[in-house]
Amino acid sequence: ALTLAPSDVLVCPLRPVERFRDLCPEEVADLFRTAQRVGNVVEKHFCGTSLTFSIQDGPEAGQTVKHVHVHVLPRRAGDFSRNDDVYEELQRHDKDDSPDKWRTEEEMAAEAEILKKYFQEN
Amino acid sequence: ALTLAPSDVLVCPLRPVERFRDLCPEEVADLFRTAQRVGNVVEKHFCGTSLTFSIQDGPEAGQTVKHVHVHVLPRRAGDFSRNDDVYEELQRHDKDDSPDKWRTEEEMAAEAEILKKYFQEN
Repeated sequence: ALTLAPSDVLVCPLRPVERFRDLCPEEVADLFRTAQRVGNVVEKHFCGTSLTFSIQDGPEAGQTVKHVHVHVLPRRAGDFSRNDDVYEELQRHDKDDSPDKWRTEEEMAAEAEILKKYFQEN
Repeated sequence: ALTLAPSDVLVCPLRPVERFRDLCPEEVADLFRTAQRVGNVVEKHFCGTSLTFSIQDGPEAGQTVKHVHVHVLPRRAGDFSRNDDVYEELQRHDKDDSPDKWRTEEEMAAEAEILKKYFQEN
């Protein structure tokens, strides 16, 4: 529900902390090594040529769910009329969130199956 | 020259790679453990209440300098009329970059001295 588009993947630490500073160094390492791998997969899968990584760390940075998460979004030329509209979309999408806009369990499971294959190849 | 404001700090890996995927896992861990520490310092020093972390990873994500860097920006209520104007400012600031807008070596050295104290306290 918090993703910008089917290609926006959220990477979260297992432990549900609110702020990035609450993670121990090992968790920080694990989080971003995972984000790096996920970035490689989604950039390839969605035919991107770049990636946007961002953490909205805290309410005044736009965080709406109190669990640290890294947005990993593949990018390509012309995907947003202005590069930073991507962040506006992030914010608006969070604000407009409602259950009727959520993908179904089946849709998400199917997507996970597709993406999972990339990780198994490694 | 690439920072948004005096409070925007860039954290870079020592090895000057172009894309986040080019970093080895140890470098990824080191980069974000550092970004975490820097975030704690600048949030406190600039009296922020949240942080924005972002990597513009590649040209289509707005990267203008081909050396991976993490933007760490302290945030507080009302700092940008819309949360995501911060990213627009990031992009515009990069585009408008010219030497006459750069701070002097003396200014940057003075700032580094102030911030350094926080790290020595740990």
